Amino acid sequence: MKALVLFSGGVDSTTCLAIAVEKYGKEEVIALSVYYGQKHDKEIQAAKKIADYYGVKWKELDLSEIFEGSDCSLLKSSDEAIPEESYSEQLRKTDGKPVTTYVPFRNGLFISCGASIALSNGCCEMFYGAHSDDAAGNAYPDCSSDFNEAISRAVYVGSGNELRVTAPFVGMNKAQVVKEGLRLGVPYKMTWSCYEGGDRPCGKCGTCRDRAAAFLANGIVE
Amino acid sequence: MKALVLFSGGVDSTTCLAIAVEKYGKEEVIALSVYYGQKHDKEIQAAKKIADYYGVKWKELDLSEIFEGSDCSLLKSSDEAIPEESYSEQLRKTDGKPVTTYVPFRNGLFISCGASIALSNGCCEMFYGAHSDDAAGNAYPDCSSDFNEAISRAVYVGSGNELRVTAPFVGMNKAQVVKEGLRLGVPYKMTWSCYEGGDRPCGKCGTCRDRAAAFLANGIVE
Repeated sequence: MKALVLFSGGVDSTTCLAIAVEKYGKEEVIALSVYYGQKHDKEIQAAKKIADYYGVKWKELDLSEIFEGSDCSLLKSSDEAIPEESYSEQLRKTDGKPVTTYVPFRNGLFISCGASIALSNGCCEMFYGAHSDDAAGNAYPDCSSDFNEAISRAVYVGSGNELRVTAPFVGMNKAQVVKEGLRLGVPYKMTWSCYEGGDRPCGKCGTCRDRAAAFLANGIVE
Repeated sequence: MKALVLFSGGVDSTTCLAIAVEKYGKEEVIALSVYYGQKHDKEIQAAKKIADYYGVKWKELDLSEIFEGSDCSLLKSSDEAIPEESYSEQLRKTDGKPVTTYVPFRNGLFISCGASIALSNGCCEMFYGAHSDDAAGNAYPDCSSDFNEAISRAVYVGSGNELRVTAPFVGMNKAQVVKEGLRLGVPYKMTWSCYEGGDRPCGKCGTCRDRAAAFLANGIVE
């Protein structure tokens, strides 16, 4: 294996997967999906189907035990509702803190799990799909370019210079991610974004709104 | 809770635990131990007993699934024997690579799990016991001060500036760790170091030799 992709089954990580497959070929790519207690665990079913579509090896981890005790609204264990507002509306109320759907150090955890799995399988590169819209206003601090620089260096140094982290969208907004994915023919209809995890996307949560805006910016109404 | 300690049940992490308890009091400290497929999983029994001794909350995680595929000699799944040599002898043969008992990105993985658990429980500080002997010659690159700086920054930034990582021994050798532990009255007889995991320490593996030398430097023959 050559590359591991952190793969939620959403828009950004599916675009990452397309990039990794284009670079290395499907036989050399592992996609890693994580159940961590999220209300929208149906994203994992989407991830499995998309991994099959691309013909890559797929691995699932259950890390839900780690977030016992967290009051993050994204988790089934939380009584707090997922905000039905855009991120910019949510950020007006957080006083510089992350939004309530921030899962404590989730990207750091996934990147570290991914690094251990990547190195155990001989990979030299790991992809993840953080982009600048998610980092804006400190909504998700583990999506920022500052975080990416630090964790990338930690992985490179801590692996004995064997593994590099690539975050191709860290300087892009979501509309630019979708533009790149459309060029690559990403099957976006197979992806899942909504945080509510209902039968159909709610259209109201922050990530539904972001998704719609990103497609609209590319002239697409889903 | 105020602090989380990555806690293997060995000399270094037990000394870390003593420091955290001295700073915050036993009611405010969580000790986290991880089963990752190590041959010497009896260290986890030692960890449980020492956590009881200190009266701190103890949590165990099973992450063994992550290292499936690794050929690291420390793992039960590996056919490779644990070297019966000192680290300096081992390093003569590795051509600048880590030793065969390096577990891929283990410290990064544990620190990230610890960060998510710490933040889910309201902690502001996380301790781990890396020291300079382990980092020497790139034996364990995830024990180096370079790695520590990068991962500490990743945790601080990625947590929205909520959690700091403290590696009190990153600039010390193991003899200095033991000296600090003796001052704190650490019950070293309860700790476990040997990588073989037999009934008694083998006295031949790298960590047995390091342990004996560190105690001898403090005038103690165990």
